[in-house]
Amino acid sequence: MHSDPYRLNPEGMHPEALYASLTSSVRRLVDVTIRSQSDPDTIVSAKAKIDAAATELSDALIPGSFGIEAGSDGRPRAWGNAVIGLRNALAPPLIVHHEADGSVWADVVLGAAYEGPPGHVHGGICALLLDHVLGATAHKPGRPAVTGTLTLRYELGTRLGPLRAEARVDRVEGAKTYAVGHLSTEDGVTVRAEGVFIHPRQTAVLDTAPPR
Amino acid sequence: MHSDPYRLNPEGMHPEALYASLTSSVRRLVDVTIRSQSDPDTIVSAKAKIDAAATELSDALIPGSFGIEAGSDGRPRAWGNAVIGLRNALAPPLIVHHEADGSVWADVVLGAAYEGPPGHVHGGICALLLDHVLGATAHKPGRPAVTGTLTLRYELGTRLGPLRAEARVDRVEGAKTYAVGHLSTEDGVTVRAEGVFIHPRQTAVLDTAPPR
Repeated sequence: MHSDPYRLNPEGMHPEALYASLTSSVRRLVDVTIRSQSDPDTIVSAKAKIDAAATELSDALIPGSFGIEAGSDGRPRAWGNAVIGLRNALAPPLIVHHEADGSVWADVVLGAAYEGPPGHVHGGICALLLDHVLGATAHKPGRPAVTGTLTLRYELGTRLGPLRAEARVDRVEGAKTYAVGHLSTEDGVTVRAEGVFIHPRQTAVLDTAPPR
Repeated sequence: MHSDPYRLNPEGMHPEALYASLTSSVRRLVDVTIRSQSDPDTIVSAKAKIDAAATELSDALIPGSFGIEAGSDGRPRAWGNAVIGLRNALAPPLIVHHEADGSVWADVVLGAAYEGPPGHVHGGICALLLDHVLGATAHKPGRPAVTGTLTLRYELGTRLGPLRAEARVDRVEGAKTYAVGHLSTEDGVTVRAEGVFIHPRQTAVLDTAPPR
């Protein structure tokens, strides 16, 4: 779960790989911060290293939040996004696959940081993932969609571990996309969702392709 | 936003303060990992410190996830919880206040890590917070509640920054609590929610008071 798919080579390393590697390390840190049983002196020592790392990274900061920036390949990057953000350690991150028929899916493994009821995914985290994948069905090049309404029906507890999130378009009416989807684990479907996603009037958002 | 309310004094320091201090440092790190504009060498150096800290904290780990443990004061601790967990850097964390009339509220400031649309809170994060505060109205000593259904209506974009989440019980029918609530910012109410929360048959969960 915490394996690092990128070799760390600062000389000529692609920024995407460098940031992915850094964020992967922060995700591991978030996990062990919850589960550590180390003694107080060790915790104090670890905290000092974390503070030093944060200070180093604060040399120069993007003001406010990441937003969306244009990548070197021209595609928009939502690297700060709470669900898919490459640089956001809160994001699992979800890798959303778009099928030719307009449906989307993502496989993800959720660990200790996503817990609500003991051993189970927080109901609100289920909502977070479903909001994102349902919204992804409505996302069109140059036309971002925002959530209008979202209804969730919890059928089973969603155990921590591997799960799939999937969604498809039910119908489109003008600026509104009606999407449906669900989460599933080895126990079967755990949460079902339906939502209406709206394309607001064109804004100045950089958005010529689905963000990644 | 990242001030550390606890002085770090490992000798005799209360575990709660020590863990809160550590997690506060990790939250700051999550934020600057998204916003850093440091050069690659600095990022590599910071990553080495983060990896060293994670390895120190991994001396001994709680297997799986935190779950709920009994605190020294006898109250259950949900320190790993994705919304309120003292040791979970993903959690803002939300401090949920319970009023005598059964309503609940929480003030929170959300930064870069909670972003969806540029400058705005991810719609799914809004759902996460509302799920939690609506559920908190149904939580009774010894009787945890889980989400049955949740419906969200997004009325305005929720800007990153300070916001309030609040909820109250609309009615109770047997094991079902019907709750309503909303998020608001200085722009007014941004998202409204209604949900049904269910008290499952008693389980073996340690839960004699609202978790904190």
